[in-house]
Amino acid sequence: MATTEVPVWSVDPRTGKPREQVAVEATAADVDAAVRAAAQAAPSLADRDARSRLLRACADALEAARDELVEAADAETALGPARLGGELSRTTYQLREFADVVDEGAFLDVVIDHADPDAGPVPRPDLRRYKVPLGVVAVFAASNFPLAFSVPGGDTASALAAGCPVVVKAHPDHPATSELVAATLRGAAESVGLPAGVLGLVHGRQAGVDLVDHPLVSAAGFTGSIPGGRALFDAAAARPRPIPFHGELGSLNPVIVTEAAATERAEEIGTGLAGSFTLGVGQFCTKPGLVLAPEGDCGDRLLKALTGAASEAGGGVMLDSRMREAFVAGVRQRAALPGVEAPVEPGGADGHRVRPGFLTVPAAHLTEDSHELLLEECFGPVTVIARYRDTGEVSALLALLPGNLTATVHLGSAEAEGPGAAVLAELTPLAGRILVNGWPTGVAVAPAQHHGGPYPATTSTSTSVGATAVERWLRPVAYQGAPEALLPPELRDGNPLGLPRRVDGRLEPGMNRSQ
Amino acid sequence: MATTEVPVWSVDPRTGKPREQVAVEATAADVDAAVRAAAQAAPSLADRDARSRLLRACADALEAARDELVEAADAETALGPARLGGELSRTTYQLREFADVVDEGAFLDVVIDHADPDAGPVPRPDLRRYKVPLGVVAVFAASNFPLAFSVPGGDTASALAAGCPVVVKAHPDHPATSELVAATLRGAAESVGLPAGVLGLVHGRQAGVDLVDHPLVSAAGFTGSIPGGRALFDAAAARPRPIPFHGELGSLNPVIVTEAAATERAEEIGTGLAGSFTLGVGQFCTKPGLVLAPEGDCGDRLLKALTGAASEAGGGVMLDSRMREAFVAGVRQRAALPGVEAPVEPGGADGHRVRPGFLTVPAAHLTEDSHELLLEECFGPVTVIARYRDTGEVSALLALLPGNLTATVHLGSAEAEGPGAAVLAELTPLAGRILVNGWPTGVAVAPAQHHGGPYPATTSTSTSVGATAVERWLRPVAYQGAPEALLPPELRDGNPLGLPRRVDGRLEPGMNRSQ
Repeated sequence: MATTEVPVWSVDPRTGKPREQVAVEATAADVDAAVRAAAQAAPSLADRDARSRLLRACADALEAARDELVEAADAETALGPARLGGELSRTTYQLREFADVVDEGAFLDVVIDHADPDAGPVPRPDLRRYKVPLGVVAVFAASNFPLAFSVPGGDTASALAAGCPVVVKAHPDHPATSELVAATLRGAAESVGLPAGVLGLVHGRQAGVDLVDHPLVSAAGFTGSIPGGRALFDAAAARPRPIPFHGELGSLNPVIVTEAAATERAEEIGTGLAGSFTLGVGQFCTKPGLVLAPEGDCGDRLLKALTGAASEAGGGVMLDSRMREAFVAGVRQRAALPGVEAPVEPGGADGHRVRPGFLTVPAAHLTEDSHELLLEECFGPVTVIARYRDTGEVSALLALLPGNLTATVHLGSAEAEGPGAAVLAELTPLAGRILVNGWPTGVAVAPAQHHGGPYPATTSTSTSVGATAVERWLRPVAYQGAPEALLPPELRDGNPLGLPRRVDGRLEPGMNRSQ
Repeated sequence: MATTEVPVWSVDPRTGKPREQVAVEATAADVDAAVRAAAQAAPSLADRDARSRLLRACADALEAARDELVEAADAETALGPARLGGELSRTTYQLREFADVVDEGAFLDVVIDHADPDAGPVPRPDLRRYKVPLGVVAVFAASNFPLAFSVPGGDTASALAAGCPVVVKAHPDHPATSELVAATLRGAAESVGLPAGVLGLVHGRQAGVDLVDHPLVSAAGFTGSIPGGRALFDAAAARPRPIPFHGELGSLNPVIVTEAAATERAEEIGTGLAGSFTLGVGQFCTKPGLVLAPEGDCGDRLLKALTGAASEAGGGVMLDSRMREAFVAGVRQRAALPGVEAPVEPGGADGHRVRPGFLTVPAAHLTEDSHELLLEECFGPVTVIARYRDTGEVSALLALLPGNLTATVHLGSAEAEGPGAAVLAELTPLAGRILVNGWPTGVAVAPAQHHGGPYPATTSTSTSVGATAVERWLRPVAYQGAPEALLPPELRDGNPLGLPRRVDGRLEPGMNRSQ
């Protein structure tokens, strides 16, 4: 059967013009070949030292290609060299952090219970547990971070750290960057003696569906929209053998400004908010999309500062024309709702640009069905300021919100000394990260990070950023009654690898090799 | 609208006769009321000390009701007072173990990263992470352990340990025991000052569906059949807000006997196998359902010992007549396949009893489509002995097997000193627990235990037995930039609760309060 090749073009978002054809969409056979190559590469990742070397080699290779990568990414995303240079640094830092995670080995969760013939209620056999890789992981790259949440991003890095080969479904907004990065990473693999198949890349929407349906794919990571992510989540669950689908889909990221905070720091908060919601042309998954600000003088001062800062904020080019159209239409729909005003009107600007802005609405309106659109994420440089009259209105609104990646509160200085704990308790059910007196954009790569939250923020209880992201790609296995000589070194009594572990109930910190 | 009450009867499996009506099936309104009561009780479980007290009070109360519980369970399940007494001891032990887990607090996964303005590639904020309860958990009780995997079982104990109230969907094979246990546990809750709503109980198949669909239910645990579990898994995934569904569905539990092992210990292995597959009238989820034994003299000796022991093994009454019929029909279908023989014929016996037995088949047949029924679990006292000619046949068969809770190998003494490691590596992808020279029935409650495995053994990577079962009911939350005064005590610098934690990358074992 003849197959018609579907070309994959790199497009310049600044002009909307195609730049070059960089690939063709993967056929079912192409997807199958990529997955099989990955599955064949899996045994080579069983050795933790090899994984650690691979992750560091990937970081080094990306660093060596810095100028070329930043130029390629900027040409396709219009995010600018400064931001993309920082994003590359974040990406290589993250790869090296996961190498440290691999070296330390705490993620293996080693637990050893020696046999105890006198144990109650029944004698206990020798049991030793650790975690093993799940198998091939499908990674669905995001549009908005062409490096840190794309081919070389946290999903890929954490899967490789876990010992899982990866096949990435490239995001259509930066196919040339994706190809360049994939070649760089595959070269890095070969440079440390690993097969290039540890990382595969496919293009095309159908290729993504084929990937999540492939019998040899054992888990998936996704960052993107609610409809796209939910469709793939459903497909993953509907397989004959369902697989874990760790998707980050969408988030409103509510912010509460207490009256005390606004009274004390209206100008600082207004300016800070403008910086946060316009960052990266509003294309952050942690963009604050709903801000609860008090009525009255202090709230008015906040709005005045916000108006000034937002008016001065430069516009920008969004990642693609479809997003730009969705942003313009989304703003228009929201602005048309009763009670909504636009002190600084967001929308389309000259050429392919958009201009940032914000909407205001009385908080009481948001608990009405007619206004539920305002509780949905609008991708791009816009935020909604809901003015509340009392804390009752705040609580009523919070009770309606879907799950979020983040929830933020700005507190007054006296509240920060104790009374604000009640607000934190009210926000905790809403999100995976709760911020005090900060802004949610910017997600630190750190062991304590949690980038995830109740649905639709994520489709699982996992994180896609930080050391614990590795947990998504592992499953425990226990060995019962296995003689020492047959045990993997991770589970031997003498702890030859110096791993943190729990032995007969007691925690041992291990050699902490990453320290 | 008038509702017709559907009675719930306790049935004597020894006679098939109804014993008494113990309840009515829960209507949608009943389910809603139980879930709302549970949700209202959730805040009372936020305090870990309260959870620990609750779990110990539940254990004490069950112990105090021992005679009554064993009698009630025996009347409905025919499992016998000795087995049920042991099961009760296991259940109370497990509740107390989870109290220790709560006291120690390692499951909270506390991670603290102090702010670091000099961190690369960007300054790092103060981030502190721990785990919080998911919310109301729906527990679907199993038939075969009316205590240890039912109302007071591991799912309930681990959910309460996590801080999640529970609504149990009772198994129809032991409704009276379920009612008695639920009343006991609710009384225990009230005795330590907690609302009875921390544990609810509903009866009826539709009630189970309503439970998994209820918006206030945040996760589910299930032990049962593949069709029933898969239907509920699908419902959990199809909700507007999907929830984690931790189901244990079915397992073949393959056993390999090497030629060396059979040569050295044919009689011991044959006798041990008979004891394992007939235990509890073959109604264990870890029953060895497929045994790969060598052709030739050593295998013949094993079969001879097995024949003797299986012939002498007493029959028994299965949990209900539907299971008995499925067993009899399942054995008949399998025995009719080409090449299958029945040296000790399993099937129906006098009255409501069944007799144990086993089938044999050349291993080469099992790789044919016509024989795939032999690779499916048959609940009841039957196992299939596949005779293999060489290790190539073993590997070919293992490659076909679905996921399992356990996989076992019996090795010769020289193999146990090294060469057997290759078999362990071959079995590891197949199961969550790998046994050497043992039998899979009997699942020790221990920190290193893992009772779960690749689908269909379980629908997630989690375990339903052992300390880590608590992880299923938690989600992480990170606090960024929160002043010390607003942080929960678990996340404060001074570690007032003595928790194990990771601070600035370094593991601290904590006070190990459970030791």
